[in-house]
Amino acid sequence: MMKCKRCRSKAEVQIRHHNAAFCRPCFIFFFQRQVQRSIEKQRMFTAQDHVLVAVSGGKDSLALWDVLIDLGYRTVGLHLALGIGDYSHISTTKTVEFAHRRAVRLITVDLEADGLAIPTLARFTNRPACAACGTTKRHQFDRVAFENGFRVLATGHNLDDEAARLLGNVMHWQVHHLAKQGPVLEPVHERFARKVKPLYRISEYETAVYAFFRGIDYVVDECPNSVGATQLTYKDMLNRLEAVMPGSKLTFVQDFLKSGRPAFSPGTDGAPQSCEVCGMASFGTLCSYCRLRREVERAQDTWKVPRTASGSGR
Amino acid sequence: MMKCKRCRSKAEVQIRHHNAAFCRPCFIFFFQRQVQRSIEKQRMFTAQDHVLVAVSGGKDSLALWDVLIDLGYRTVGLHLALGIGDYSHISTTKTVEFAHRRAVRLITVDLEADGLAIPTLARFTNRPACAACGTTKRHQFDRVAFENGFRVLATGHNLDDEAARLLGNVMHWQVHHLAKQGPVLEPVHERFARKVKPLYRISEYETAVYAFFRGIDYVVDECPNSVGATQLTYKDMLNRLEAVMPGSKLTFVQDFLKSGRPAFSPGTDGAPQSCEVCGMASFGTLCSYCRLRREVERAQDTWKVPRTASGSGR
Repeated sequence: MMKCKRCRSKAEVQIRHHNAAFCRPCFIFFFQRQVQRSIEKQRMFTAQDHVLVAVSGGKDSLALWDVLIDLGYRTVGLHLALGIGDYSHISTTKTVEFAHRRAVRLITVDLEADGLAIPTLARFTNRPACAACGTTKRHQFDRVAFENGFRVLATGHNLDDEAARLLGNVMHWQVHHLAKQGPVLEPVHERFARKVKPLYRISEYETAVYAFFRGIDYVVDECPNSVGATQLTYKDMLNRLEAVMPGSKLTFVQDFLKSGRPAFSPGTDGAPQSCEVCGMASFGTLCSYCRLRREVERAQDTWKVPRTASGSGR
Repeated sequence: MMKCKRCRSKAEVQIRHHNAAFCRPCFIFFFQRQVQRSIEKQRMFTAQDHVLVAVSGGKDSLALWDVLIDLGYRTVGLHLALGIGDYSHISTTKTVEFAHRRAVRLITVDLEADGLAIPTLARFTNRPACAACGTTKRHQFDRVAFENGFRVLATGHNLDDEAARLLGNVMHWQVHHLAKQGPVLEPVHERFARKVKPLYRISEYETAVYAFFRGIDYVVDECPNSVGATQLTYKDMLNRLEAVMPGSKLTFVQDFLKSGRPAFSPGTDGAPQSCEVCGMASFGTLCSYCRLRREVERAQDTWKVPRTASGSGR
């Protein structure tokens, strides 16, 4: 019988890269303590800060929010209803139900109702859905944080996400991205919040186990647009390495922060300006989100799509 | 029918990462021209230089030597008989036969006859065979180049080798290794030759096809010690990426040389000293090979192994 590393009772989960096994209560304790240590060690935020937590309805972001609530941090959830069919509807339902059950405040932005659903943006601008989605998320996260006075924005990116992104940046030697990648991104614009990733040392497997042990009801399906995404190829590569050498992902990310990143000097982009339309950070007169919206409007005008029918709601 | 990119006749081989297909003569031309361009672009050596080519008997090093002979470079082969059982005997036979057929000079160092076979070194020093082998090769290559007046030493490392080594250095963020990795290593000691890798942009698949088209008879088996080597895991990871995104390996290595490597500053090791025993480069009084040999001798004395019987031949 495999025994719990902490209490020696029967273990229910084995964490190979920590060479450890835990019973259910001790794993929850271990998990939450790991998150707390990341928050403190990386000076992400304190118990006094008001933290906006970006919540998609998936296991990672709900697990993150769950831990932060339990650890006594002051949090408000932020959910974007992206308008990606059933996937988005289920995601929103699960998120709203979680907030209700835990009696915590949730801000929901309904992009579909605003005529800004991801499929609409992608269709009218000829961009890959994932590109439109990334631009949308960055803008909406920043905007809601700013308008509601949050100085800290937390996302559910886990170790697998961080390792895959790092590998992608390395495979193309994106040195400016490498100079910035990490669990804490300090604001470079007056309207920006500090962006933090408290789960950056915790594997996807661990958050899945945590969500299961805690009875968190999350959307299980992946976003339909993510099928075949490059990121998944990188995750697959790293999983193969992890299977042969447990701990590889964690070493990769931690050694990067310690030895790799210092080698890359920050780019010479300079500080961003402010967007003439929305006032958020921009390089140029318009921010990338307002540029995206303008493109959509022009295409809709050309295509003679009545804006009210597409639900742009102005 | 797939057509040759150069002559439009029937193609026999497809090179996905170059988005090209070739007939047999055009592939040989294409392959040799690629090697020549690497040599010239990276200023590895000229037609006036005397080049010592390290030849294991495998497809890469024999293909390299074959190309260099055809391109008219002045080469001499260097083969180490490593004493790893049948694998080594077959390797030596294939190398000797190649040199004979092409009527080129080959220097063979018989480590087994000198009592310095890799299994002996590994057994008496408790090191992994691959570590003992690496130390041996570096020393013997340097020594033979120096004693025979060669200023350039060429090895058969191909794109897969280079990409796998790069990935390994990146996974552990070995910044001092990253600062130096590349197709040309300039000498940092008076007895060192310049070390060059003319096949660094050519995939293992391409060298296999080249060797087959040219009728080169090489040792097909991998070294029995390489089973399960970490390097193979990295190669496997990169092959999966290459299958999804052809050209990934080449981009990884080339972008590293262009954008990645400049970020890493060379280590502060300082110049090496000279070994008190053999006079080759060392950090400390003895070079790592002479330290290894001394360890073996001490262990053999302790174990009462008669040196002559083990064949040390002094």
